Amino acid sequence: MNQPDSATFAPHRFLIVEDSYDPSAVAANETLFCVANGYIGIRGTFEEGRGAYHHGTYLNGFYETEPIIYGEHAYGFAKNKQRMLNVTEGTMIQLYVDDDPLDLSTGKIIEYRRYLDMEKGCLNRELTWSSPSGKLITIESTRLVSFVREHIAAIRWKCRMHEQGATLTVISGMFGKVKAQVGHEDPRVGTALRQNALIPTGKKIDNVYGSLRHITRNTRFNIVCTMANELTTDSHFATFQQATSQEVSHRFQINANPQSEVTLSKYLCYYSSIASAPKKLSALSMKDVQEARKAGFDRLLAEQAAYLSDFWRTSDVRIEGDPSVQQSVRFNIFHVLQAAGRNSRTNIAAKGLTGEGYEGHYFWDTEIYAVPFFMYTNPNIARHLLEYRYNILDKARERARELDLNGALFPWRTINGEEASAYFPAGTAQYHINADIFYAMRKYWLVTGDTEFMLRCGAEVGIETARFWLDMGDYIPGKGYCFNEVTGPNEYTALVNNNTYTNLMARSNLEQAASVMEWMRDNHPEEFARLQDKTRFEEQEINDWKNAADRVYVPHNRELGLYAQDDSFFDKAVWDFDGTPPDKYPLLLYYHPLTIYRYQVLKQPDVVLAMLLQGDRFSQEEKRRNFDYYDALTTGDSSLSPCVQSIGAAEVGYIDLAYDYFMQTARMDLDDINRNVKDGVHTAAMAGTWLSVVYGFAGLRDYDGRISFRPQLPPEWKGISFRLRVRSSLFEVRIGEQETQYELLEGDPLTIHHGDEEIRLEHGRSASGRHGPRPINGMHSGSPRRNLRRAKA
Amino acid sequence: MNQPDSATFAPHRFLIVEDSYDPSAVAANETLFCVANGYIGIRGTFEEGRGAYHHGTYLNGFYETEPIIYGEHAYGFAKNKQRMLNVTEGTMIQLYVDDDPLDLSTGKIIEYRRYLDMEKGCLNRELTWSSPSGKLITIESTRLVSFVREHIAAIRWKCRMHEQGATLTVISGMFGKVKAQVGHEDPRVGTALRQNALIPTGKKIDNVYGSLRHITRNTRFNIVCTMANELTTDSHFATFQQATSQEVSHRFQINANPQSEVTLSKYLCYYSSIASAPKKLSALSMKDVQEARKAGFDRLLAEQAAYLSDFWRTSDVRIEGDPSVQQSVRFNIFHVLQAAGRNSRTNIAAKGLTGEGYEGHYFWDTEIYAVPFFMYTNPNIARHLLEYRYNILDKARERARELDLNGALFPWRTINGEEASAYFPAGTAQYHINADIFYAMRKYWLVTGDTEFMLRCGAEVGIETARFWLDMGDYIPGKGYCFNEVTGPNEYTALVNNNTYTNLMARSNLEQAASVMEWMRDNHPEEFARLQDKTRFEEQEINDWKNAADRVYVPHNRELGLYAQDDSFFDKAVWDFDGTPPDKYPLLLYYHPLTIYRYQVLKQPDVVLAMLLQGDRFSQEEKRRNFDYYDALTTGDSSLSPCVQSIGAAEVGYIDLAYDYFMQTARMDLDDINRNVKDGVHTAAMAGTWLSVVYGFAGLRDYDGRISFRPQLPPEWKGISFRLRVRSSLFEVRIGEQETQYELLEGDPLTIHHGDEEIRLEHGRSASGRHGPRPINGMHSGSPRRNLRRAKA
Repeated sequence: MNQPDSATFAPHRFLIVEDSYDPSAVAANETLFCVANGYIGIRGTFEEGRGAYHHGTYLNGFYETEPIIYGEHAYGFAKNKQRMLNVTEGTMIQLYVDDDPLDLSTGKIIEYRRYLDMEKGCLNRELTWSSPSGKLITIESTRLVSFVREHIAAIRWKCRMHEQGATLTVISGMFGKVKAQVGHEDPRVGTALRQNALIPTGKKIDNVYGSLRHITRNTRFNIVCTMANELTTDSHFATFQQATSQEVSHRFQINANPQSEVTLSKYLCYYSSIASAPKKLSALSMKDVQEARKAGFDRLLAEQAAYLSDFWRTSDVRIEGDPSVQQSVRFNIFHVLQAAGRNSRTNIAAKGLTGEGYEGHYFWDTEIYAVPFFMYTNPNIARHLLEYRYNILDKARERARELDLNGALFPWRTINGEEASAYFPAGTAQYHINADIFYAMRKYWLVTGDTEFMLRCGAEVGIETARFWLDMGDYIPGKGYCFNEVTGPNEYTALVNNNTYTNLMARSNLEQAASVMEWMRDNHPEEFARLQDKTRFEEQEINDWKNAADRVYVPHNRELGLYAQDDSFFDKAVWDFDGTPPDKYPLLLYYHPLTIYRYQVLKQPDVVLAMLLQGDRFSQEEKRRNFDYYDALTTGDSSLSPCVQSIGAAEVGYIDLAYDYFMQTARMDLDDINRNVKDGVHTAAMAGTWLSVVYGFAGLRDYDGRISFRPQLPPEWKGISFRLRVRSSLFEVRIGEQETQYELLEGDPLTIHHGDEEIRLEHGRSASGRHGPRPINGMHSGSPRRNLRRAKA
Repeated sequence: MNQPDSATFAPHRFLIVEDSYDPSAVAANETLFCVANGYIGIRGTFEEGRGAYHHGTYLNGFYETEPIIYGEHAYGFAKNKQRMLNVTEGTMIQLYVDDDPLDLSTGKIIEYRRYLDMEKGCLNRELTWSSPSGKLITIESTRLVSFVREHIAAIRWKCRMHEQGATLTVISGMFGKVKAQVGHEDPRVGTALRQNALIPTGKKIDNVYGSLRHITRNTRFNIVCTMANELTTDSHFATFQQATSQEVSHRFQINANPQSEVTLSKYLCYYSSIASAPKKLSALSMKDVQEARKAGFDRLLAEQAAYLSDFWRTSDVRIEGDPSVQQSVRFNIFHVLQAAGRNSRTNIAAKGLTGEGYEGHYFWDTEIYAVPFFMYTNPNIARHLLEYRYNILDKARERARELDLNGALFPWRTINGEEASAYFPAGTAQYHINADIFYAMRKYWLVTGDTEFMLRCGAEVGIETARFWLDMGDYIPGKGYCFNEVTGPNEYTALVNNNTYTNLMARSNLEQAASVMEWMRDNHPEEFARLQDKTRFEEQEINDWKNAADRVYVPHNRELGLYAQDDSFFDKAVWDFDGTPPDKYPLLLYYHPLTIYRYQVLKQPDVVLAMLLQGDRFSQEEKRRNFDYYDALTTGDSSLSPCVQSIGAAEVGYIDLAYDYFMQTARMDLDDINRNVKDGVHTAAMAGTWLSVVYGFAGLRDYDGRISFRPQLPPEWKGISFRLRVRSSLFEVRIGEQETQYELLEGDPLTIHHGDEEIRLEHGRSASGRHGPRPINGMHSGSPRRNLRRAKA
């Protein structure tokens, strides 16, 4: 392994390159080449528009609602659908060469190259095209959505003539009559709104600027999109303006000389009334776009590169020995960054801002998959994500009231904080999200040391979630504290009693809420009193929670030596895997829920996940036995699973299996393994890639804030290195073939563990721990490989 | 007890009388005064239209479909909504006295009487009204829907002047632009179609006849409604015609002399293309209406009375000692007759043809509640109802294929044979309907001796339902044959394993299908061979079914001495009945399904029902213990429950509790106990009234065709008598205070049982059995009374 130079950490190249134009790859690549900054997301459609699969521009948290129509309604069903909206398209730059439109399905492509530059944070295209009438041109475009300026996107577009001149028409505009992406019978995409959501309410255009204004039909949000177009060329040209209620554009008529070049700089700004007063939107967006224009495209590029340099400094993961893995790890990390809302009012949608799958909803993915990555690398973003939950706590309180329960119940899927799941057996019944959220808040606090957050937000969430569990559970004599009629993370089993994952997480929620309140009472009496007052908290509740936690029932089958996924899991027959042809996966698209629910078959291996999140409560032997059993039942139908399976496999010593699962999560979107990248990336699986490296191969464990590693390098690789922040400290972990080196880069000295060995990280002193013998491929013949076989078929 | 004269069986009076006009009772009384013949149903709105709650005219089996929109879709969900349509209103007879419209909210009502005559089968109104300008008139109307002529309804409407004459305008017409009845958030009513279903396609009018033609938007059914208007008076009058696309009418302008009388005879005919060729509808309906007109209203009345005389001869139940019970028993029986389709293409909707509750769907209500009544009193109707199921068997086969199962799965709710339940946990998961249907078919065969039906229809249903159970169940080591992820009749518990009711009924389905096939093989080899060929039946299947049946698992808790409603029922806490205020019932309107499912609480007491349907498999002691336990948990939230509770209570000796539950089922609609009669009557509860008397107080049991009685007369009554048909025999049962008399009226001698005593019924010889000591009120202090308390609160 080459030792990375920890002082400079010079990044490798960070490119995703498409080097030929393939119409059949258009839909997927629009997703992969999406650029976003956590607020604005723009799919990778070509500026000229033609040949696009789906033009998509999204603003995190900008949505429409509509009453959900139920075939059969019942009390307490979620009332309103929420749908992230596709908003005004701003990338449109049409080109006519003489009278031929630039359209890759006509003429001839001489050269083509498109690449996402993850170091610079922009999408580039270089195209040389011969028009049907034989004029040769070269187009170069660069597109970015600014990480520094939340509301700004920009495009620099160049057209260069070759031997011949031509009359060029360039139309650069914005288009308001956009369409929604709809999934028909694929439940993972979501259904269309019944009515067009965006109603045009105004337009403006002058020689440089243009804007379109809309209002949403039901949510009554205003949105303003403003652009500036700046064209430079040494050829003669004229500018025209065009404006209808749904389109504003500048048309440039250019008598382009041979060899001449035309450069268009386009600045886009999106503002919505969710965070700003409706009356100020136009002024705000004009101000931002003017400032961006004044700064200029190069400055925006430089800002972007600086931001990313800072990001990669703490967030990069280097894999030595496999460039394709290296590429996908960075790609996944980059997309997670692009997806994450960072204003405490927005979060991470299941598909980020790359597509409309899952309707732009936020799920538990944030807390269980994305927060660990951010809290170790960009704690500020983790904090924003968790503050979002605190900001919807009142809605969660209302939801608990609706369900006749104390405390708060966070929605299974939502944008605005209200439950938006129209199928409660795999929605509201996933009560575990309550515990997942508090689990992440507490872990964030322990790892970052952000006590202010815990005092101001986390403790209150702890109180209300603990109250919820106490009320929702029932003490059943002979069993203990039970949580009945719940659905765990495994959505192939629903409405069961005592889902092990849920019960373990609820128990931890009760225990940790109690311990946080005790800590607060003893150490922060003023804040304790304030919170007591606000939540009418009584100290007796601490004991109630502890007592309930002590008695939480966890189903365990002594005979089989297994935890039961739930009370009745072992009373079901095992799914007929041998009788299920490969084209019947994912099962959810080919079998009725009643059929799936009737069998032992897993979408998400939730017992395995519970043994990771609560890993300090289980022996290695238990972990192995349960992993063996449940992994054999896991279909691979959920993008959330392979990373968990990878970490689980690594923990119990199945390193090659861990590697195979890792490859599924790491290459999921780049290789379009699930064949639905067109609907958006799998954000949780992308974050799961980081988890698989850091929790999986590096073996990070952080129970109660104790940081330990148990590195295992897959035989396919030569080394892994990454950096983590823990409280004030930044340190680097470099896993080589024989040993792992730990180096403190910033902040206070820190104690960590390598295996059972304590290591003190101090400045100027490198520490290391040796590995055991390297695992050999194929050693774990007892472990199940069904999914891999299928996925590879 | 007065001995009824069995030779003449002179009926008592059969009237439901409303003797004053109460606007607040309008909505409910429209339902109660509905007249119907199993095909056409017309709600009891006034001819003049004004003041109506909901004009409703229904044709059994005439429906519209629309795709069901799911908030979250999944494979195998029911695709289309079905909704029984409100069709062309034909009762409209408007009257203007000088210029004042007849409108009971204006002028003055001098006399008012409306009554449903269940002996004559018509609805009558007698009204003396003083118009706002002081003209006194008397209106008499009689309305019938002919039991003899399937497509015909008719009205005779008379207006008599008193001291003063007046200019009368009578407008008699048909109106096509009718509205649907919608339930908003009451899931029991159903949701509206998104688009108006009936599109007008034609109209005709001449001096006497008029017709309107429509087509349904999606199902593309044609419907023609034709009327004839015949007005006679000794005053001078002129006739005018009016026709728009949605209304045809005759207007009569009459210079009515003092004391003069105007008589309008109106004949209505409904035909749809479901059963007749679209091109023939107009001619068919014209022919029928002409024939009806030619026969004249008096002849229609006489036919109707003759039909009902025949009906009541076998179907009447006499209760001595309580006129209000007597009235309601007859009312309920009459409405069950009105509801029942009798052309093998239609069935009994949950609300009959009286309203749009449950969207006109057919449920298990038919087989479990209505068929026993019909098979003992009008076997021909029972046969039609069961033939309907046979006629949808192919759709049930398709549905099983969709669910990846062998055999056939009948839809939980349907009109056209396709599953229409949009909430599968309380829809498709109620697989038990399969067993309910075959159970009813076999019982029908044993009681009526209709071997032809069993050979032609029943056996095939037996094969396909048994195949279904064999495939749907799984053998679980240590337990037995299990049916997992099902919902039993109790809809307050869903998606459980081994619902006792389902398992017992499935077991019986497997056993009885096997025995029927053995009987057929041995006794009807030709039909056996034909069926074998048609269904690819293999004899080995008989053994497979028997083996599975022998091993069916039934959850029983030895410790508690109770059958468990399902595997996990006793793992749940008991619902907090004490903490639930009376206004929070029915629970389904105030608690999320997740809350209800989490507790031991019952909508339908399905273990109790199982112990009735499979009563020969349980000891009296088991029945009592289980009744005690489950009855205490039953909310009274289902109209299907009190009759079952009444029979169950009677069986275990709680005669006063049986009486109280009986009163709930018997008076449910007349007293509007559930406060939703406006949406239609509760047909199953009405049939359940008959069951409560015959299976409850008379203690009829008919396991395997052995007929026995164990009569118990409630202390409130002096006697009960009714007649039953068993095979060729008709006999009467007269329960008095000391003894019960049995008398053969028609057909072959018959052996029955009184208690354990065998009784041979022969012509000219009355037989009797003595009773034990009469039960005393309040003896069963151990039995739960919660529901009664609440219902009476």
